[in-house]
Amino acid sequence: MANSIFSDKTRDLSGSAIRATFKLLADPEIISFAGGAPSPDVFPKKELEVIARDIFREKGNLALQYGITEGYTPLRDFVKDRLVKQGVIKESEQVIITTGGQQVIDLCAKVLLNEGDNVVVEAPSFVGGLNCFRSYNANMIPVNVQPDGMDLDYLEEEVLKKVKVKLVYAIATFQNPSGITMNTEKRKRLLALADKYDFFILEDNPYGELRYKGEDVPTIKSMDTKNRVIYAGSFSKTLSPGLRIGFFSAREDILEKMVVCKQVTDVHTPVLNQLIAYDFVTKHDYDAHIKRSCELYGKKNALMLKCMDEMFPTYCTYTRPEGGLFLWCDLPEKFDSQLLFKKGVEKKVAFVPGSSCMVDQAQKYSSFRLNFSNTADENIIKGIGILADVIKSFE
Amino acid sequence: MANSIFSDKTRDLSGSAIRATFKLLADPEIISFAGGAPSPDVFPKKELEVIARDIFREKGNLALQYGITEGYTPLRDFVKDRLVKQGVIKESEQVIITTGGQQVIDLCAKVLLNEGDNVVVEAPSFVGGLNCFRSYNANMIPVNVQPDGMDLDYLEEEVLKKVKVKLVYAIATFQNPSGITMNTEKRKRLLALADKYDFFILEDNPYGELRYKGEDVPTIKSMDTKNRVIYAGSFSKTLSPGLRIGFFSAREDILEKMVVCKQVTDVHTPVLNQLIAYDFVTKHDYDAHIKRSCELYGKKNALMLKCMDEMFPTYCTYTRPEGGLFLWCDLPEKFDSQLLFKKGVEKKVAFVPGSSCMVDQAQKYSSFRLNFSNTADENIIKGIGILADVIKSFE
Repeated sequence: MANSIFSDKTRDLSGSAIRATFKLLADPEIISFAGGAPSPDVFPKKELEVIARDIFREKGNLALQYGITEGYTPLRDFVKDRLVKQGVIKESEQVIITTGGQQVIDLCAKVLLNEGDNVVVEAPSFVGGLNCFRSYNANMIPVNVQPDGMDLDYLEEEVLKKVKVKLVYAIATFQNPSGITMNTEKRKRLLALADKYDFFILEDNPYGELRYKGEDVPTIKSMDTKNRVIYAGSFSKTLSPGLRIGFFSAREDILEKMVVCKQVTDVHTPVLNQLIAYDFVTKHDYDAHIKRSCELYGKKNALMLKCMDEMFPTYCTYTRPEGGLFLWCDLPEKFDSQLLFKKGVEKKVAFVPGSSCMVDQAQKYSSFRLNFSNTADENIIKGIGILADVIKSFE
Repeated sequence: MANSIFSDKTRDLSGSAIRATFKLLADPEIISFAGGAPSPDVFPKKELEVIARDIFREKGNLALQYGITEGYTPLRDFVKDRLVKQGVIKESEQVIITTGGQQVIDLCAKVLLNEGDNVVVEAPSFVGGLNCFRSYNANMIPVNVQPDGMDLDYLEEEVLKKVKVKLVYAIATFQNPSGITMNTEKRKRLLALADKYDFFILEDNPYGELRYKGEDVPTIKSMDTKNRVIYAGSFSKTLSPGLRIGFFSAREDILEKMVVCKQVTDVHTPVLNQLIAYDFVTKHDYDAHIKRSCELYGKKNALMLKCMDEMFPTYCTYTRPEGGLFLWCDLPEKFDSQLLFKKGVEKKVAFVPGSSCMVDQAQKYSSFRLNFSNTADENIIKGIGILADVIKSFE
């Protein structure tokens, strides 16, 4: 260890377990609930074919040349107008385009965190977020997610009163991996805590538009009167992840510093992709497109829950999300989701073991994540059946 | 400063001067030699229109879905085969696709450097490289570029014998900003020094294929028997910068660590863009395409030099590059390239002042960089004429 060639911050960093499971997807026999991909059934391929043709004919030089780091101005304006209309940001605030939502986490971590700084993360949380904070040697402090969101009593009493926290990373809506949405009261209290204990909040909201039932909850950013929130969004779940287009808004000085860091990271997000996204959302009915995704995911979610209700043993409890791509299943403590995972793969069904979503990946966790957005209905039925048998085999 | 909200590494980081000058390009009257963009005249727009159409028709789901962090396998294989054929890497080595060549610098810095680690950079060097090392709080040590490349006597005697160096950042071929190519002897000696003093070399080679006269010089990586070189390449100058596709090869452990860091930075390079690049380089004659770029840039380079020979005062000296996009002009010490720049912009001609390309940006430098790839011939003639007058006005 002393003689490692690597920087302190990356020395112990290794690939995520989810990433390893992606290789399983190559086996066509595996029914995978492990990924987090939207369904290709809703990719607007025909529309994008025409859009790409027109771009190469009419704006080819723009699409292929260097662009500015902040992003393609009409796309920035579109996102800004949309966020203003949704009440998320104010007219005076700016939006920056990023190479996927992941880049927002990376830039935010880079500009705010020294090695060893304390970052509060939800337990469980998004693997890509956890690994990003790991890659900057931040000290992650997990706070449990309750059915109505992060446990803020614990956050205040056991964390904020004891140590200085720089950043709280919150996927408040249809959380990855739990599917849970933080309620409005908790969002307000989290903002009050941010002010009282002087920390920033990274509100990562890639799933917020994918609500298929229930009532909208205001984003944390929309109630942020003290400029404490860095707000991250993405086109990955509403249009296409392969295009890698995300965005963020934040107070001016943080936003500007993140832009400088983006410049040294990838100069700018590919221009062609920004033009494609912009043309799609302006030439087609983006809201209707999102609605189609929601309908599809709502049906798949309901189907998976129905199968679980029928086939899972009664000691399994799981979330019933109102949107997003994931649900979370808790088993009694004696189960080990890693062993369950190995057995599952043998039986040709895959999911994400809970340990991957935790700060301490080495500990045993009985919970696991299921994705339902990108699996054919018949495979949801079949896969949940296999998984039920796998669980029972460990009884 | 003590109360900055920003991380130590990014606290003093600010946007590059080149970036500020990009805003000048919006003024259509400005003749800009400031950028580093390839000519849109060589963008294969018609070919890419057909390629994009076919991708959306035949591989739309692949193009729009999440991909793997390492890159699209056929493109990785293409780049690998090409680098093996060119003698740059061995059959046993891997290639990873990145979001532009800039990302290689970023990933390399992140995995190798702690704050305060010593990185040797050429003086002058690439602004995006310098700013990237700044963003990790590396301690940059400048070593002058001589007409045959980095001053290795100085490097050994004044740097390596005195302090521990972790990384040497070298743009050995058609260097940005000087246009200078390091000769073979120096490349061999740099490798020997790397072994003797135990450092790594980041060989950044985005311009290597853009040779329009003279003889090829072997890449440093091609002579690297001790696995000291991280090799970075790019499609930005040979196909399109707007697509943001770069690549690298390195010894296995470094490569793998960089892949993990890429995953937490942007998950993967956009798949659509990788498919487009792959289809272009396999369905069309990529070498012939590069040759057309070389012919164009060779002509523009010759035209700029001819104009400078005729119009610049005799106390101006400048490089005569055999490839790439840039040349470097030295003026007597009494000149200040920042003042020259301001006057130039008034007179509607822009370039990059030398200070932007130096570790110490606050110091006065008399030199400056000229780009010739993306300016119409008549504007090269006109712009060099204006610049000659601006220089003379400071005599």
